[in-house]
Amino acid sequence: MGKVSSVSPFAPAKLAGLPAIDGVAFATAEAGIRYKKRTDLLLAVLDAGTTVAGVVTQSKTASAPVLACRKHLKKGAARALVVNSGNANAFTGQRGREAVDVTIENAVEAVGCKPHEVFVASTGVIGEPLDAAKFTHLLAGLAKRAEPDAFEKAARAIMTTDTYPKLATRSALIGDTEVTINGFCKGAGMIAPDMATMLCFIFTDAAVSADALQDLIAQHTQTTFNCMTIDGDTSTSDTCLVFATGRAAERGQKPVSKAKSKKLQAFSEALHDLMRDLAIQVAKDGEGLSKFVTFEVEGAKSWAAARKIALACANSPILKTAIAGEDPNWGRVVMAVGKSGEAADRDRLAIWFGPHCVALEGERAEDYDEKTVAAYMKNREIVIRVNAGVGKAAATVWTCDLTHDYVSINADYRS
Amino acid sequence: MGKVSSVSPFAPAKLAGLPAIDGVAFATAEAGIRYKKRTDLLLAVLDAGTTVAGVVTQSKTASAPVLACRKHLKKGAARALVVNSGNANAFTGQRGREAVDVTIENAVEAVGCKPHEVFVASTGVIGEPLDAAKFTHLLAGLAKRAEPDAFEKAARAIMTTDTYPKLATRSALIGDTEVTINGFCKGAGMIAPDMATMLCFIFTDAAVSADALQDLIAQHTQTTFNCMTIDGDTSTSDTCLVFATGRAAERGQKPVSKAKSKKLQAFSEALHDLMRDLAIQVAKDGEGLSKFVTFEVEGAKSWAAARKIALACANSPILKTAIAGEDPNWGRVVMAVGKSGEAADRDRLAIWFGPHCVALEGERAEDYDEKTVAAYMKNREIVIRVNAGVGKAAATVWTCDLTHDYVSINADYRS
Repeated sequence: MGKVSSVSPFAPAKLAGLPAIDGVAFATAEAGIRYKKRTDLLLAVLDAGTTVAGVVTQSKTASAPVLACRKHLKKGAARALVVNSGNANAFTGQRGREAVDVTIENAVEAVGCKPHEVFVASTGVIGEPLDAAKFTHLLAGLAKRAEPDAFEKAARAIMTTDTYPKLATRSALIGDTEVTINGFCKGAGMIAPDMATMLCFIFTDAAVSADALQDLIAQHTQTTFNCMTIDGDTSTSDTCLVFATGRAAERGQKPVSKAKSKKLQAFSEALHDLMRDLAIQVAKDGEGLSKFVTFEVEGAKSWAAARKIALACANSPILKTAIAGEDPNWGRVVMAVGKSGEAADRDRLAIWFGPHCVALEGERAEDYDEKTVAAYMKNREIVIRVNAGVGKAAATVWTCDLTHDYVSINADYRS
Repeated sequence: MGKVSSVSPFAPAKLAGLPAIDGVAFATAEAGIRYKKRTDLLLAVLDAGTTVAGVVTQSKTASAPVLACRKHLKKGAARALVVNSGNANAFTGQRGREAVDVTIENAVEAVGCKPHEVFVASTGVIGEPLDAAKFTHLLAGLAKRAEPDAFEKAARAIMTTDTYPKLATRSALIGDTEVTINGFCKGAGMIAPDMATMLCFIFTDAAVSADALQDLIAQHTQTTFNCMTIDGDTSTSDTCLVFATGRAAERGQKPVSKAKSKKLQAFSEALHDLMRDLAIQVAKDGEGLSKFVTFEVEGAKSWAAARKIALACANSPILKTAIAGEDPNWGRVVMAVGKSGEAADRDRLAIWFGPHCVALEGERAEDYDEKTVAAYMKNREIVIRVNAGVGKAAATVWTCDLTHDYVSINADYRS
């Protein structure tokens, strides 16, 4: 871990309380994989009949667990999820694949299921062999003592440089039946998801087919996790999975098999809202951050172009450090828009810092007042809005500033 | 300027001494555009018959001077170059264009040439109107006292956050005639050239057509300035110009009009070598750097792919901070290769830190010894080599680490 151990200024005063979800139970353990005196192993046990969908990193150096998830997702059924923190089991070659295999074997035995019903995820240091023997013997015991009301414990077991667990819950009606969606995730550095944040797990009692879930999660990931960045660095381990136990059927929910079904609309919206909530929580725990920053780009040619411009801003070290220094250096916004490569009309570009228009029609706003905008920069939450002046599309990206603490944390992560 | 005023550890103990070049003269002045008690205005006066070629930023928010250079380059002739530091004249709208126009008018009068023979460049803060009246009245006087032996003075006048002037000189034979190539440039932050570093000016007495020069500079920029990055941020003002006075013709050099002419081979190589030298000098003055870092990528499918992988490494904040912390965190190299999006065989990837192989065949090298590699990281100059395992192409990218001082400098650039 890094030298900076203080908690993010955006850590919630009180963590969200997540209700139990029928068909989902958790147990955690201190396996001592890397960290001492904290949990680093999570087993989620899922009822028979649970469907699953997910998205994983598009990194060319994806980890061994990511490859296993990608394979198992094709079958769409889940009974167990095993997650360890402290070691990413990435770039670990044949030994890495063997560690995954033996984990799955042990989970199959502990839970009583098929290999393709086991999902695995690892997060932590890249390139060090993961010694699965440190934790596989624990799985049988964990399966026995798994309990439903343990979302916070589960979220804590998968943390690495996170300073707080990220939890969210929503409910929605499917037909007349209320279903619950709970999710938690981790991630604080090496965050520029090319799919999902490092690790995110979502659980619901809704009865929804794996295909429908897959459509929803793929769609919602675009405007949530893929619109959030901390340092522009994409993890080898990004995994976002959603599990649906279907237990709401017992309360009358008719199973839904198509994402486009009108019956799923409220569920889809709630899922999107939950994913957005979690994405923002990740940005708010960005390594070393002092400010949470939202870039809203409008007037672009397409949503993709707007997102790319917003990401160019959100990933600019020189702009992020200016924000850390509370300097309303909007010239660096101009620079970032320019480097994005997307269409923007230099002579129609407009920029706002919070409510203050700093640039209009391609030059500094007539009534720009440095002191007013500098005062705005003292806020903990900064919103920077850009109108590219060439179209009608918009996108929002969440990020944080780049501080001395980011350097301290990452200069010494492994020591 | 930033809070950190110390000089780069890579500042040369002794600056390169550049010989005079026939047909080139410089004068500088303290115009007080932004900085006090230092020169911030440069006029270069070029003999009649000087050809010119150049490359400018591809930023969508290019500065007003960049637009003027782009237009004038089409004619290929130069008599004057006017550069100011302290204000980039970027994102300054109509007023910015007017400042360029009035600068050109005054230079035309001072030097006695046509408007298209005047080249202009500005570097400094973006978005603040440039008051050309602060310096245009000085140009006539500068033209009168311009002197040939003033390359160092010229290089100093265009510095912003640079901690030392970047100078280089080479000579080459064209036929039997020795010609000289001198160059200087500036740049220390907002450096991920999409063309050239922020500002680079090269002068030669060779008699070479503008077309041939253009071919050479466009080609060499790819493997020099476009293979160097400090923070991944592309300036609005990148400009690299090469001026050839042709005065070597007086000493018998037969003018060359085609870049492919065999007669130009030594000149082309010398020009490439000089540009590479200057690019490395820029990386060695990266804002706040403590280490100069070279990424050598081989085994890629194409030069472009190798460069993209190397740039993904060189622009990774989390990898650059690890290097600043002297942590041989090669897992972050794996991450950066993965996020580049270029083909790489995860199971054949190999990585070296200096002479030490840390990863081979997709996993940690058998004889990897953390202590040995950690000791290597204490060096001031770090070379990281990656074999992508999918082809035969290679590329080299130069950069620096990401330190606390980078944050300090850029959190407070304008105050």
